[in-house]
Amino acid sequence: MLELFVDIKDELQAVENELSEVLKADYPILTETSTHLLNAGGKRLRPALVLFGAKFYQFNLEKVMPLAATLELIHMASLVHDDVVDASLTRRGMPTVKAMWGNRIATHIGSYLSAKSLTLIAKYEDRPLISEVLSDTSVQMSQGEIIQISSSFDVNQSIREYFYRINCKTALLIAASAQLGAVACGAPGSIYLPLRRYGHNVGMAFQITDDILDMIAEQGQLGKPVGGDLRQGIITLPVIYALGRCEDKKRLADLAVKVHKSDDEVDEALEIVRNCGAIEYSFDIAKKYIAKAKAELRKLPDLPTRVTMSMAADFVCARKF
Amino acid sequence: MLELFVDIKDELQAVENELSEVLKADYPILTETSTHLLNAGGKRLRPALVLFGAKFYQFNLEKVMPLAATLELIHMASLVHDDVVDASLTRRGMPTVKAMWGNRIATHIGSYLSAKSLTLIAKYEDRPLISEVLSDTSVQMSQGEIIQISSSFDVNQSIREYFYRINCKTALLIAASAQLGAVACGAPGSIYLPLRRYGHNVGMAFQITDDILDMIAEQGQLGKPVGGDLRQGIITLPVIYALGRCEDKKRLADLAVKVHKSDDEVDEALEIVRNCGAIEYSFDIAKKYIAKAKAELRKLPDLPTRVTMSMAADFVCARKF
Repeated sequence: MLELFVDIKDELQAVENELSEVLKADYPILTETSTHLLNAGGKRLRPALVLFGAKFYQFNLEKVMPLAATLELIHMASLVHDDVVDASLTRRGMPTVKAMWGNRIATHIGSYLSAKSLTLIAKYEDRPLISEVLSDTSVQMSQGEIIQISSSFDVNQSIREYFYRINCKTALLIAASAQLGAVACGAPGSIYLPLRRYGHNVGMAFQITDDILDMIAEQGQLGKPVGGDLRQGIITLPVIYALGRCEDKKRLADLAVKVHKSDDEVDEALEIVRNCGAIEYSFDIAKKYIAKAKAELRKLPDLPTRVTMSMAADFVCARKF
Repeated sequence: MLELFVDIKDELQAVENELSEVLKADYPILTETSTHLLNAGGKRLRPALVLFGAKFYQFNLEKVMPLAATLELIHMASLVHDDVVDASLTRRGMPTVKAMWGNRIATHIGSYLSAKSLTLIAKYEDRPLISEVLSDTSVQMSQGEIIQISSSFDVNQSIREYFYRINCKTALLIAASAQLGAVACGAPGSIYLPLRRYGHNVGMAFQITDDILDMIAEQGQLGKPVGGDLRQGIITLPVIYALGRCEDKKRLADLAVKVHKSDDEVDEALEIVRNCGAIEYSFDIAKKYIAKAKAELRKLPDLPTRVTMSMAADFVCARKF
């Protein structure tokens, strides 16, 4: 567990138990894959945000627990499907479901996890906003992934298109997490809207940082190979910046559009991006999102949770994994 | 459209329009894949059952249309994912999404369609049974597919296991279709429970017939190659029967467990199954399910729709595609 989450340690443990309970199954293959996914860990950022958000209005663990579990299940499902699509063999340093059980099982496990999340949301019939937000988010998440695939190897995409894409694939679910815990407890818009915007901004910063780390992390730190996005043709913020501004932009474009790149070519492209200020530029943008996230927090009641959420926002940019 | 559905022609057209509307998207790739799927057709059995069921209690097209579209979207999503998993290149004689756009797009299109269905269900907050049944059904559908994969090439499975599997993968969604149209219109259990059981029995017969057709259809009639299940190691009712009863059961078992079968080996296995009465036995079971489905209809008010539904049940066993 992240140090940051120490105040909600017990609640997060309750969510963990809920997840184990939900994923308990009669069939060995389902138990094995679920246990594998639960043990593979993850930061549990989304459940933590659900819990934090709920603290601002008549916090009730019973009410938010299924929701916190739901958000993690939706996230897990998207990771399992992404691993099928990206053909990734490791994540967080562990073998993926795809690597252990193959594409066919992984495709259905992703759908199984999504469906399991629906059984939990069904409990919130008195809060229609929850299913509205989550169904909308799910649509846009898939849409974001599809756009990412169809725009891969396209070196003419704009920063605006990049922002749209990362909002779909990452920020919307984090925004929903921050918003819906409060919604589940019956909070009004004056509470859940700043929370949602906080989540959106944190989510944007989170994905930009992820995209930066993919270009600068030491091998081993990420739990997956460096330069993976470039290899797959995913054009991220540092690359878009470098394609527009750096001296070697012609060479970078030639490398970026190559469907099969050698390790040397990936290294060369990474060097070009790293040497033209693209990383610093991207970090600055991430930090601007963090500043916006913190500004939203100031609209909320002055509780200790606000401080933790502010630290969580900083962590998103400072992390190395 | 099936001749059988002539009484609900206009309503089915309204559902078709609703589907087009729901799948309208800003991104060319999403519009193309959706249009492809809609044009690829299908019998629209599930929307038809939603409409039929609703006829038994204060029929209201506005109320049932989003639900009818939802059921078709869930079905479509499962087909798109199945084609990824089964590596199928054609379905209903048309190229699959997987064949046209690849595995990566197809995986996300499947999730996109599921998510779209959720946005429609969100409209039924006053009928919690609808989201309960559909979330439960979705879980079991994925579970059924996973069990099918993990039991493939297993020649020791029982008929009971086969029934469990086809209930998950096919009958539950058909049962939900028959049930939920009436639920959406506010019908009591005395109406929607017989409808659900009708759907279950029709669904079981439907899948058994599908599994039989996979072994006896003329090439070209199915829109996909004959013997596909055997090739993939899916052990269906006729094979389970033959493995238990026929003279050549040892040889059949040897062929069935082979992961890579030549065309001659598939033909030989099909011959063994066809020559031992397994097809007739399986048809008899399908017909028993149809008889049970019709018995459920007799518990419903005596409307003309009852006659159509009885004919629909017969059609399931009589069809050649």
